Amino acid sequence: MKNVTGARCTLCGKVVPAEPETTVCPDCGGILDIEYDYEYIRSELGRKPLEQRTDRTMWRYMELLPVEGIGNRPRLRVGCSPLYKAEKLGGLLGIQKLWIKDDGQNPTASLKDRASAMAVVKAEEAGKTTIACSSTGNAASSLAGNAAAAGLSACIFVPARAPKGKIAQLMMFGARVFLVDGSYEDTFRISAEAIDRWGWYNRNAAINPYLMEGKKTVSLEIAEQLGFVMPDYVAVSVGDGCTIGGVYKGFKDLYETGLIDRIPRLISVQASGCCPINTAAAAGTMDWVPQEENTCADSIAVGVPRNPVKALNAIRESNGITVNVSDEEILSAMRLLGSSSGVFAEPAGAAATAGLKKAAESGLIEKDASVVTIVTGNGLKDVNNAIRSAGEPVHIRPEMADLEQYFR
Amino acid sequence: MKNVTGARCTLCGKVVPAEPETTVCPDCGGILDIEYDYEYIRSELGRKPLEQRTDRTMWRYMELLPVEGIGNRPRLRVGCSPLYKAEKLGGLLGIQKLWIKDDGQNPTASLKDRASAMAVVKAEEAGKTTIACSSTGNAASSLAGNAAAAGLSACIFVPARAPKGKIAQLMMFGARVFLVDGSYEDTFRISAEAIDRWGWYNRNAAINPYLMEGKKTVSLEIAEQLGFVMPDYVAVSVGDGCTIGGVYKGFKDLYETGLIDRIPRLISVQASGCCPINTAAAAGTMDWVPQEENTCADSIAVGVPRNPVKALNAIRESNGITVNVSDEEILSAMRLLGSSSGVFAEPAGAAATAGLKKAAESGLIEKDASVVTIVTGNGLKDVNNAIRSAGEPVHIRPEMADLEQYFR
Repeated sequence: MKNVTGARCTLCGKVVPAEPETTVCPDCGGILDIEYDYEYIRSELGRKPLEQRTDRTMWRYMELLPVEGIGNRPRLRVGCSPLYKAEKLGGLLGIQKLWIKDDGQNPTASLKDRASAMAVVKAEEAGKTTIACSSTGNAASSLAGNAAAAGLSACIFVPARAPKGKIAQLMMFGARVFLVDGSYEDTFRISAEAIDRWGWYNRNAAINPYLMEGKKTVSLEIAEQLGFVMPDYVAVSVGDGCTIGGVYKGFKDLYETGLIDRIPRLISVQASGCCPINTAAAAGTMDWVPQEENTCADSIAVGVPRNPVKALNAIRESNGITVNVSDEEILSAMRLLGSSSGVFAEPAGAAATAGLKKAAESGLIEKDASVVTIVTGNGLKDVNNAIRSAGEPVHIRPEMADLEQYFR
Repeated sequence: MKNVTGARCTLCGKVVPAEPETTVCPDCGGILDIEYDYEYIRSELGRKPLEQRTDRTMWRYMELLPVEGIGNRPRLRVGCSPLYKAEKLGGLLGIQKLWIKDDGQNPTASLKDRASAMAVVKAEEAGKTTIACSSTGNAASSLAGNAAAAGLSACIFVPARAPKGKIAQLMMFGARVFLVDGSYEDTFRISAEAIDRWGWYNRNAAINPYLMEGKKTVSLEIAEQLGFVMPDYVAVSVGDGCTIGGVYKGFKDLYETGLIDRIPRLISVQASGCCPINTAAAAGTMDWVPQEENTCADSIAVGVPRNPVKALNAIRESNGITVNVSDEEILSAMRLLGSSSGVFAEPAGAAATAGLKKAAESGLIEKDASVVTIVTGNGLKDVNNAIRSAGEPVHIRPEMADLEQYFR
């Protein structure tokens, strides 16, 4: 890959070659970060060439991705999700210029498709035909879907308590699903052992630096959709830290390539019931402390984040701000997004907007700010919480008198 | 509208002006069909101009749509759903050239978004600020979502037995939901009375000829995505008849405009437990007979179809074929789509593929045929049936011995 120079450890700074199976730092075990030759990329990538590309997927930004190409296997259409100008919601939140990036409009209905699509291509590069992870959430379903499209096998390890609906989705995509009679810790451990034993490709996010390179395409799209005029802020919900790390990486790449002239300040939103990253960021330390997982937003309920370093760097380097939100604020943001803009978000997907509302109300961000809020997953993924949030319909008998009374 | 000549009754042939609130035929009550000036359209629309359009929504085919424009209100990104080349699934079904049109990748996750987006624009043309329908299904959620985006109010009438999850989705979009203590018949009647009484815009499919004009954009896209080289067959699931009517209308428009040189034969797929349209079509009569609604595919469980005339015409005029499928065949097709292609379909969305499988196996269609199968809705809409279909995961203890045994 002419555009990639190596993989640098986020802890000790060691640089190793970027192979498809490059995992954590051989010296200190730190998470790696893929590095690029921005001078080379600058000579290849500009606004004009981009405009002329007909590829309407995340792969349209090939020069900024750690792959030679994506081969000939079938792919789901990942990326190029809509960016909606949200005047009504902006008015309600008191924000002058607001856009919603609806990443629930991906094939398996979450931003994770960007990471899984990348993982599948890297697995093929490594000559693997099976790819594995431990998860019951969006990572698992996106891996199962993207692997199925490409004709790869997926092995997914889930703790026995996993909800049936989520398992059904995995099974529909033909994944081998192993229901592990134990805790999530047990499940992760057995998945790691099995990956070693059978040599499968590893899609566990903390181990694989390429996943974030897939996720960063959300920022490349936001920039292109805004004509490379950057908003002041980008709000994103934060769980294990991989997504905000990817969001930052995308903007950093564009900045280094000269395609944008500043990096938006990131608004890192966590649930009040589970906010180890924001707590550390607010205290200005890298020493985060594990927390319990008390929130309805399951996709960001991560008490022991796997990517705290990249997340904390992203917040600090973007001069970002942190906001924590209650479950009530999250459920209320779901209603706001739906009723003002026709966007149905899962709780974790609406958390960013909940945080934005709070930041605007408390004066943390300026009234004339321009903001993009990212919706990371679709509400159909979690209908139970939608029911909690939705409120009650109007009951009537099939008689006009009842309706007349209601409208009076 | 320079491109529209009028609205013709599908029963008596009377032509009336195409106003936004044009409803059924004033003489006989028949459903109307919007008619175009194809000569004019031919002078305006060609492959080259289309190629250069950057609009990646259903509105890119403006010359073939019954609107002057879509105004300045915000819109969801409807249409331009992916068309996947499905070699693996084709191999499994014994079909040489197969594509999947995944219309579950629309904003509210079904093809109905095309109709609702059109309804919202026509409501605005008519100067209405409220739009109404009776339904609990995809029509209702797509209306609620598309109306919310545009800042219109939606009133939705649902029978009291409607599932809570579906109501939650409607409420999230800020629709006024009226839970009617009565049958679906009662619900429809009170909605019609209320629409009359308060002058709302009517999105009930049998009454409003524009909805089908929205739906037909699925065919315009299929044609463009295939470079205007038509497949031999297009398979589509059929309930009240509006969707297959729209699919046919799209191809007919393209044929009349000279953009394609033949109309694909339609494969009309209904559930064996509810197939009044296919039964009439197979008997070569327009006299369909109401049936019970015995199928898990709720979106096509329509015993009294509202658009039988257009559906039966579509089947006959395309030299189409009819196939009925059992619930088991539908659930099996869901697994096939998911595991071979990474496409998660709701039961009604998979029915077309189930019918295609049956048609291929029984020799109804040729082995070297080229086929597009349309997936009309996403499986996340109906997780319960996915659970029914999915099968059981593998149970293990968190010990390698269990895995070793499984793989032996």
